[in-house]
Amino acid sequence: MSMFRKVAIIGVGLIGGSIGLAIKKKKLAKTIAGVSRHKESLSAAKKKGAIDSGSCSLDIIKGADLVILATPVNTIIELAPKIACLVSKDCLVTDVGSTKEEVNKRLSGIFPNYLGSHPLAGSEKRGVANARADLFRGSLCILTPLQNTNRRGIEKIKLLWRSFGARVILLSPVEHDKILSFVSHLAHIAAFSLIAAVPGEYFKFASSGLKDTTRIAASESELWADIFLSNRRNILEAMNLLEGDLSRIREAIAKKDKRGLAAILQHAAKKRKALANL
Amino acid sequence: MSMFRKVAIIGVGLIGGSIGLAIKKKKLAKTIAGVSRHKESLSAAKKKGAIDSGSCSLDIIKGADLVILATPVNTIIELAPKIACLVSKDCLVTDVGSTKEEVNKRLSGIFPNYLGSHPLAGSEKRGVANARADLFRGSLCILTPLQNTNRRGIEKIKLLWRSFGARVILLSPVEHDKILSFVSHLAHIAAFSLIAAVPGEYFKFASSGLKDTTRIAASESELWADIFLSNRRNILEAMNLLEGDLSRIREAIAKKDKRGLAAILQHAAKKRKALANL
Repeated sequence: MSMFRKVAIIGVGLIGGSIGLAIKKKKLAKTIAGVSRHKESLSAAKKKGAIDSGSCSLDIIKGADLVILATPVNTIIELAPKIACLVSKDCLVTDVGSTKEEVNKRLSGIFPNYLGSHPLAGSEKRGVANARADLFRGSLCILTPLQNTNRRGIEKIKLLWRSFGARVILLSPVEHDKILSFVSHLAHIAAFSLIAAVPGEYFKFASSGLKDTTRIAASESELWADIFLSNRRNILEAMNLLEGDLSRIREAIAKKDKRGLAAILQHAAKKRKALANL
Repeated sequence: MSMFRKVAIIGVGLIGGSIGLAIKKKKLAKTIAGVSRHKESLSAAKKKGAIDSGSCSLDIIKGADLVILATPVNTIIELAPKIACLVSKDCLVTDVGSTKEEVNKRLSGIFPNYLGSHPLAGSEKRGVANARADLFRGSLCILTPLQNTNRRGIEKIKLLWRSFGARVILLSPVEHDKILSFVSHLAHIAAFSLIAAVPGEYFKFASSGLKDTTRIAASESELWADIFLSNRRNILEAMNLLEGDLSRIREAIAKKDKRGLAAILQHAAKKRKALANL
């Protein structure tokens, strides 16, 4: 017996498409309906086998027992009330938004069976063309239940991500957004700023160091503008720390303080090695 | 006939060791002498076949027709006068230091046949243990001749790097240091600062984005402190630009200016895609 009768995936890009492929591979649903603003994405997703049927209209989600919102954060919030009119109260609802506090606040007020998900498995690549059934294998998926989130719903969503090969961790939405502001959002801001600062005419001298350090700056700008704005307070605090560390390095260089500079760099290198050994 | 009779490599770490292995592989020298402060590095280099003989004393370099200084920048400058007493005026001398203006100024005053090299082929890994004969294959090597640098010497050093599989570009030391302050030094500063800013207890939530963005922050702190101080003026200017870009992103986030923020990010993403397509 399948875990779900009908799964509806709203947004069939890299993440939505990969979820469809993973559900199909594991035979977790009898049918998958996909929704997108773009007809081309729907036909690509269908051709790839990520969805069984697709539509630009939300009506196609009727009868779903699981809805997965896989659009940028602000679109998740925009679509939620429209989706609520189309599904039963029993329908399990999750999203894969990159920030959770605001989304949880809104969606938990709209859906009785809502639970936030955040699979840490993105990429600077986008679109269903890059979707893969094994995108989540070995990755981390954070679930953000609230006090009153239905226990059975949590177990079912946990099982879903685990069957995709992800490790599941539960955090409060507040903890999630604080942690992600550092490990993901600040890293993107550093990468965007760095590539912006390097004159394009010097690119031909770039080695793998610059390329790796800025890889994630090729990410979609609209999506990341949304993420940064939906986690504003945490990100501004994290930026304070980054700017403080830059200032300390600047000061040591300006003062020709080799000892102080080496100490700052050594501390950083030690942390980076600890990250490698995790 | 070999290109060189006796090559002396001062510093048998990742770069010095890889040069030894590449010379051996291409049979470009009759013999290679290695110098290091550490006996263990010398025996490891010998065992690996990167050098034929090794010593902690510079005396071993006598009779060399090519000397390659492969130590950190400040050690290159320290050792140069001692080396000058041990080799003939005809001896070709090069170094692999990461900054060139200061090194060129000092070494061209000491050695009649000096030409600066900078192979852009390092790694955050270090030591002869990680040395490989093909480290330079497909990489870029910048040579920094001055007006009066001997033409035959330039051709010989060019040929050496080309036979290692590197593409060779000639730049003035001033241009080199300006360009490298952006494509290499600023990237390292961004990576060191970013990892310093992220609380260690959040590392278990790090995905490949943070790891790639900070990979080069695992680099050797003493070496990089030297590089930053020997290219101070350029680096402080490059940092101004990075800090300016960070401020612009901060301001757009603080003002909730989604349009302005997306425009900044899009410009950066476009640059990063241009870098990928080079």
